[in-house]
Amino acid sequence: MRISELAGRTDVSIPTLKYYLREGLLHAGEAQGATRASYDESHVDRVRLVRTLVDVGRLSIDRVREVVRSLDDPPASRHELLGAAHEALRPSAPSAPSADATTESLARVRALGPPGCEHSPAGLQLAQALTAAAAGGWSIDDATLATWHRAMLSVAETDVAPALATAPPEEALRYAIVGTVLTDPVLLALRRVAQEAVSARRLGDTPRP
Amino acid sequence: MRISELAGRTDVSIPTLKYYLREGLLHAGEAQGATRASYDESHVDRVRLVRTLVDVGRLSIDRVREVVRSLDDPPASRHELLGAAHEALRPSAPSAPSADATTESLARVRALGPPGCEHSPAGLQLAQALTAAAAGGWSIDDATLATWHRAMLSVAETDVAPALATAPPEEALRYAIVGTVLTDPVLLALRRVAQEAVSARRLGDTPRP
Repeated sequence: MRISELAGRTDVSIPTLKYYLREGLLHAGEAQGATRASYDESHVDRVRLVRTLVDVGRLSIDRVREVVRSLDDPPASRHELLGAAHEALRPSAPSAPSADATTESLARVRALGPPGCEHSPAGLQLAQALTAAAAGGWSIDDATLATWHRAMLSVAETDVAPALATAPPEEALRYAIVGTVLTDPVLLALRRVAQEAVSARRLGDTPRP
Repeated sequence: MRISELAGRTDVSIPTLKYYLREGLLHAGEAQGATRASYDESHVDRVRLVRTLVDVGRLSIDRVREVVRSLDDPPASRHELLGAAHEALRPSAPSAPSADATTESLARVRALGPPGCEHSPAGLQLAQALTAAAAGGWSIDDATLATWHRAMLSVAETDVAPALATAPPEEALRYAIVGTVLTDPVLLALRRVAQEAVSARRLGDTPRP
């Protein structure tokens, strides 16, 4: 298909598609003479992926380029696929100057996860988040952290991990990245709905009609 | 204290403090002549709050202004405090053109939460997140959504809601906002750590040393 049809199929403008091509987010089409190229379904899929990462995941263009490259060259080990997905989805900058993980936060992560998890992208992200919360005056005690960890284990059971074992590596990696990007906002919104339910019960307020 | 001391206490530069003053994020100091003002602990607290919202919560300046105004004029009902916090923390733009909540997503939220929750800021945010996930090709079945909802209820029990009942309104609202901003990243990182644990177990890979 021509670029105009790719634009129509994906609802992304031609200038934006050309930007994606220049930035290496979208692989080149097949050349059809000096100024034309032909695109196929792989381009439609890729453009939709880029839109999801940009619009929903709020990833920077540099980060999207990393994701795309990791999809083109997925790690060999199934378990490393998840590390690659988490590495791609890590927060794009330390969220505060104080967000370097402290030794104490790393020790808390080590106490929680599978052995060595404090060295994984996910473990480091957790240590940084704990450090940033503490720096913001918010300490999370061990009992609370354990409760939250159990809650997230029950989420993970129905989560992206199961798919990693079955799909081909490129597909599994894409699944882990897209699934996490699209469902993180669902989980955070569910948290707020749950806060309302708990608040309504504890305060005995009648909920709004 | 003078603005230079406020800058030292908060590790925020004088030009940034002046920007906060101009933008209405920080209340004026007490005038000490034509060009000087005096600041107190309330300014230190406010600057730290603004930094947390900007650096960790990634809120826009406009959104931070809304938060600050809602703190200066908290709602009378305890239960509405949580709605005000959620309203302040809602995603700053529809995360995708398709993110307007569909009737189907709203019905799913209605089925989950306390009566009327699909009209609350949290319920609308959930409906939008479900719609965006579906538009990105990611449908979450009812059983999975119910599992995640239960997980988030257990998080909410140890969460900001308990504090709403006890603290003065301004403090409770601040607690709900800051607590949610600082702990959302912890929950998302815990999710990734849990994914690794489930993946390691299912795939039988030996974790990295």
